[in-house]
Amino acid sequence: MSKYFSKKYASLEAYVPGEQPKDMKYIKLNTNESPFPPCDAVVRAAEKASERLQLYSDPDCTPLVKAFSSLFGVKPTEVIFSNGSDEILNFAFMAFCDESHPAAFPEISYGFYPVFAELNRIPYTEIPLKNDFSVDYHDYCNINKTVIIANPNAPTGLCLSLSEVEEIARSNPDNVVVIDEAYIDFGSESAIGLTKKYDNLLVVGTFSKSRSLAGARLGFGVACESLINDLNTIRFSTNPYNINSMTMAAGVAALENNGYYMDNCKTIIENRSYTKNALESLGFSVLDSKANFLFARSDRIGGAEYYKTLKKKGILVRHFSKEKISDYVRITIGTKEQMDALLAATEQILREEKS
Amino acid sequence: MSKYFSKKYASLEAYVPGEQPKDMKYIKLNTNESPFPPCDAVVRAAEKASERLQLYSDPDCTPLVKAFSSLFGVKPTEVIFSNGSDEILNFAFMAFCDESHPAAFPEISYGFYPVFAELNRIPYTEIPLKNDFSVDYHDYCNINKTVIIANPNAPTGLCLSLSEVEEIARSNPDNVVVIDEAYIDFGSESAIGLTKKYDNLLVVGTFSKSRSLAGARLGFGVACESLINDLNTIRFSTNPYNINSMTMAAGVAALENNGYYMDNCKTIIENRSYTKNALESLGFSVLDSKANFLFARSDRIGGAEYYKTLKKKGILVRHFSKEKISDYVRITIGTKEQMDALLAATEQILREEKS
Repeated sequence: MSKYFSKKYASLEAYVPGEQPKDMKYIKLNTNESPFPPCDAVVRAAEKASERLQLYSDPDCTPLVKAFSSLFGVKPTEVIFSNGSDEILNFAFMAFCDESHPAAFPEISYGFYPVFAELNRIPYTEIPLKNDFSVDYHDYCNINKTVIIANPNAPTGLCLSLSEVEEIARSNPDNVVVIDEAYIDFGSESAIGLTKKYDNLLVVGTFSKSRSLAGARLGFGVACESLINDLNTIRFSTNPYNINSMTMAAGVAALENNGYYMDNCKTIIENRSYTKNALESLGFSVLDSKANFLFARSDRIGGAEYYKTLKKKGILVRHFSKEKISDYVRITIGTKEQMDALLAATEQILREEKS
Repeated sequence: MSKYFSKKYASLEAYVPGEQPKDMKYIKLNTNESPFPPCDAVVRAAEKASERLQLYSDPDCTPLVKAFSSLFGVKPTEVIFSNGSDEILNFAFMAFCDESHPAAFPEISYGFYPVFAELNRIPYTEIPLKNDFSVDYHDYCNINKTVIIANPNAPTGLCLSLSEVEEIARSNPDNVVVIDEAYIDFGSESAIGLTKKYDNLLVVGTFSKSRSLAGARLGFGVACESLINDLNTIRFSTNPYNINSMTMAAGVAALENNGYYMDNCKTIIENRSYTKNALESLGFSVLDSKANFLFARSDRIGGAEYYKTLKKKGILVRHFSKEKISDYVRITIGTKEQMDALLAATEQILREEKS
């Protein structure tokens, strides 16, 4: 820290993204990316956009708003786009949390939530999960705080039902409820429809996981028009041209080819089920994930050691040293071939442990 | 504003970007874009990157840092990249301004500076320009505030000499001095070299103007390692994957083809000189711009009316209704053909005014 760094941020601990080692080629199952490339139309659209990069991108994201609102059945005024969903989450912490509206989110969840709270100096409560790692929705009802819940939650993959989400929104009429649906397309139900009914509900999503655009950085928020206006006040006071032209074109093409991505999600759900069964046969406990990853532990090997040994074998998974979950690893669901490689390596590791 | 919007931001007035009307095709001379497209290598690099968008971009921007540090003669630890230079400017306001380090910038300058100050609730002073619209560097020496100066300044195009910039940095050892060099490649001298000598100097730049990448969103900051570390603490607490893969690839290719862009800058400088002379022949007063725009006024037509009449004729320039500069318009320098169209329209307008 330099002597010039504002004392406001003296104790700020930045978020640590999943590692991206460059020493060798790994099977990457550590950052919940899709194993499937974007469809050809996305590549063509991005290329076409790249030919006229000398012009600013459209700060109103007109074509993207149009394609999105048509596919998701919302009004153009009910959606906002961001440079990845991290940006819209930060905007939400800025816009809807303060001393009088402290934040509340699960103790075990996306590790960026406490960072956003610290960055914006917002008081926050981390609410413990139940012993089975699920979110108890009762904990968030009538809480009189700004609620942020990842649904499905990360790194557990467990989800709330739509009626539970609704009850949280309904019972907190004086606060915004943010549902972070980064992993919604892998088997759980989106709350986007509920934004018509609850003017305090903000649903956040991303094109990074189910739509194979992690590298393009495209997130979104859906809410009633007045919440979107608030978020746009923040956006236009921060970075009005936050979506570049190539990502905008890629996003439009991805929405126009939704079937390709939803088919990929089906494949990932099948591979998840296959991998869960196989890991359980090897004695692992595996949570019932509705996301594109599994959260798993074994009595025969610690989480840190399993992670390290897999890495030596060229397979990256994610381990969190945080208490309560340090026995687990989070494994992104890739192609069948990638999962078979993981399972073969795991069998070998368990054999070596034994001997 | 919704009832949920934090009272912190109740009086926040967002930045208003240059208009992008969609009703017809205009000659766009209103947002200081380059009239020249990116070179082929940039298009090819962006396309290649778009084929693997399912993977996250590199949060360390490794290839971009390498290409940049090599071209600009700085260490890899002395540069940071951002989603357009607006993002790095906001990071600088966050990191280096607070109650004890209020901000100071010219009263007439990039309109986003007061927005960043308001957003981050930083006290700030807007220092008037001299009567000739130049920045008096004496006003910023020994000021004991965090200084932000666009050099060349916008919308005037006037610049400080390198020795004046140095004196500002030298005389404010307890504060950061931010030099925003968005327009540096059009005829004035960069302070990047001075960052080796002054650990309080942050030079901000962009690929939007001279490098034809406005639509890709790529800004940067150069400073000593400890200032860059501070800015990275903010970046990793906000949006670690802030540079998407296509923009990263495009940026590398742009740096590798620097000659193409510097040749374009020469052409723009020639067209600027040509346009300035022609406008002066038509009786305009035109400031001595070192940027890719001219700031001009005529006794024969008001700024607002000139802007409006040009727009009707299909030519967009930028008019600021702000006091002291409302007589002027800012005209981006485009191709020779575009400037001839502007000049022809201007002659016609002046004739019509007269009759």
